[in-house]
Amino acid sequence: MSLSPGTEDFGTVRIVGTGLLGTSIGLALGGGMAKVLLTDPSPTALALARDVGAGAVDDGAASPDLVVVAVPPDVTASVVFEQLHTNPHATVTDVASVKRGVLEQLEGRGADLRRYVGGHPMAGRERSGPVASRADLFLGRPWVICPTEVSDPERVAQVRRLATALGASPVTMPAEEHDAAVALVSHVPQVAASLVAARLTRAGDPAVSLAGQGLRDVTRIAGSDPTLWAQILAANSGPVRDVLRELRADLDDVIEALAALGEEASGRRSWPPREAVGARGTLARLVAAGNDGRDRIPGKHGGRPTSYAVVTALLPDEPGQLARLFHDIGEAGINVEEFSLEHSPGMPVGLAEVSVLPAVRGALEEALVTRGWHVV
Amino acid sequence: MSLSPGTEDFGTVRIVGTGLLGTSIGLALGGGMAKVLLTDPSPTALALARDVGAGAVDDGAASPDLVVVAVPPDVTASVVFEQLHTNPHATVTDVASVKRGVLEQLEGRGADLRRYVGGHPMAGRERSGPVASRADLFLGRPWVICPTEVSDPERVAQVRRLATALGASPVTMPAEEHDAAVALVSHVPQVAASLVAARLTRAGDPAVSLAGQGLRDVTRIAGSDPTLWAQILAANSGPVRDVLRELRADLDDVIEALAALGEEASGRRSWPPREAVGARGTLARLVAAGNDGRDRIPGKHGGRPTSYAVVTALLPDEPGQLARLFHDIGEAGINVEEFSLEHSPGMPVGLAEVSVLPAVRGALEEALVTRGWHVV
Repeated sequence: MSLSPGTEDFGTVRIVGTGLLGTSIGLALGGGMAKVLLTDPSPTALALARDVGAGAVDDGAASPDLVVVAVPPDVTASVVFEQLHTNPHATVTDVASVKRGVLEQLEGRGADLRRYVGGHPMAGRERSGPVASRADLFLGRPWVICPTEVSDPERVAQVRRLATALGASPVTMPAEEHDAAVALVSHVPQVAASLVAARLTRAGDPAVSLAGQGLRDVTRIAGSDPTLWAQILAANSGPVRDVLRELRADLDDVIEALAALGEEASGRRSWPPREAVGARGTLARLVAAGNDGRDRIPGKHGGRPTSYAVVTALLPDEPGQLARLFHDIGEAGINVEEFSLEHSPGMPVGLAEVSVLPAVRGALEEALVTRGWHVV
Repeated sequence: MSLSPGTEDFGTVRIVGTGLLGTSIGLALGGGMAKVLLTDPSPTALALARDVGAGAVDDGAASPDLVVVAVPPDVTASVVFEQLHTNPHATVTDVASVKRGVLEQLEGRGADLRRYVGGHPMAGRERSGPVASRADLFLGRPWVICPTEVSDPERVAQVRRLATALGASPVTMPAEEHDAAVALVSHVPQVAASLVAARLTRAGDPAVSLAGQGLRDVTRIAGSDPTLWAQILAANSGPVRDVLRELRADLDDVIEALAALGEEASGRRSWPPREAVGARGTLARLVAAGNDGRDRIPGKHGGRPTSYAVVTALLPDEPGQLARLFHDIGEAGINVEEFSLEHSPGMPVGLAEVSVLPAVRGALEEALVTRGWHVV
């Protein structure tokens, strides 16, 4: 699980911005892979990053080989421009979650784009700031790298090595493709979760008391930070808008189908009965398209999606019960692919859903029942 | 965990429809609480339900005290009407997931509504049919009961007792309120999940390879059965349409804000710079409203939502590792409130996210680190 310190040497690395991402990069590189210099407009954030061991405070004396710009998306382009300008030999990369706007702004200002390699490590935590940082924040996460036609290939390779050295999986694609992809897999899901969750603000208590795991899952990311997300959505306005317009076209079809069905229902006792021709088909087609889309999401380890068999066991709500469950599963030599704990509203019992490869489903059920578990 | 057989006696209970719900009710009641008679238009489903022990095949000789109609939503009203008509002394209840349409159709046909008590056990599984049935399917789940002004109070109490005897938590509300509630907490989330997942059908492989846990959560229920969901949405067309229209109004605002921001960006190099006044505010307000709505969803045990502290540990992908983790947590005397296992694309390592009460966060982190876990 270690990050193999010493296998890479990135020379002197300046990190501009000691929030969660910048500090985590410093922590990881500081383990023998670089001389890390930190800078941040907030003296408090800077001191904290230094104190957790992310690097030394940059006094401006040394000339960096690599500059990592880890500032909020709306100021990324300005800071990258400045760093390219003041460090004429350094490679400059960034970690902003939207890439095309940064590139366009740099082009507009005539920056030396041969030395800029845009990046986006797809990592984050609920908490933010230097104190939440971890050297292994990037372990196993995709790290998108967006070279352009004018990028110096050696500098692109340097940033790929950085991603790899931090434990991430580098993925190379053009900035435009990156922005369209994150609109689809991250920004639009965020908007959808917020749209659904926002409906609950005026609901009565009895209504929300009926909430189940489906609603919890759909709205989990609706707990995200409004200010940060307003910035991200604004920075990726074009691609997000395109996907949302497609989504709205489907939504309009659903609303129209439901309206036709409502008229059908209100005319149910008239003769001849009205019929909402095709309305049910519209609804079924949307859910079927959702099935197809859902099936495209990669499963564990980034492979093609696998259908797992789910075995559900009742779990008394006491310390140690999950330990006992996993002890028993481990003893049976079975590997858990996915796991979720579902709540039972009003009852001191949980439903443990254990996903395994279909071939071992029977063995797992037998192992659990034999060991006294209530498999449902 | 047992269902206390013998504490209730429901007399002779006819179950019409031996799918997942009907068969599960039969299994639970058959443990000493009723003489269960089964009927289904499919001889195969009926024989399977009998074979798993859900009750005897109904030969029509006995007169039931209680009839449970567990047929698809679009034929529920007809079957309830027929059962009320042919069993003039029996209470008739159903399990359809939409309640007002059934009631209106019964009213339109002049059914004896004193003896009809609509119900909706909020339970289900990925699998369907009699073979997937379980006596404890309803354990800890809400079971909505929708009496009307003309309902006989004793029959309402009888159906409440049925829900309680099966381990569910009965929740009483008018049919109209039930339908509005499930539109909000179940039907609209389903539509939203399908709308987001449907966008992925035409996405490239590199784009979907960036999918993370957020997208997985938002689209989990997009795997649902299209035919069943077309029926459910059609049966609840009015309330679902109302909520979706509200959602579309917010969506329109977001699209408009993004369009304004796109124009602002394209005019960034002009003077005076265009500014999308208020657009960022619109985006931030939606995400903030989503925060508020998300906070209203009840937490574990149906109580008020609790903010849990999340401790994340790295988990090697080998059998027994989860057992070791939960053993160590159990030894520390700490109760896990929520748990999820996150995948690391391309890496043989998982991220175990353990949610605990905030007060024990420190103790858990210490316990895990002491025992050699890599807490991130």
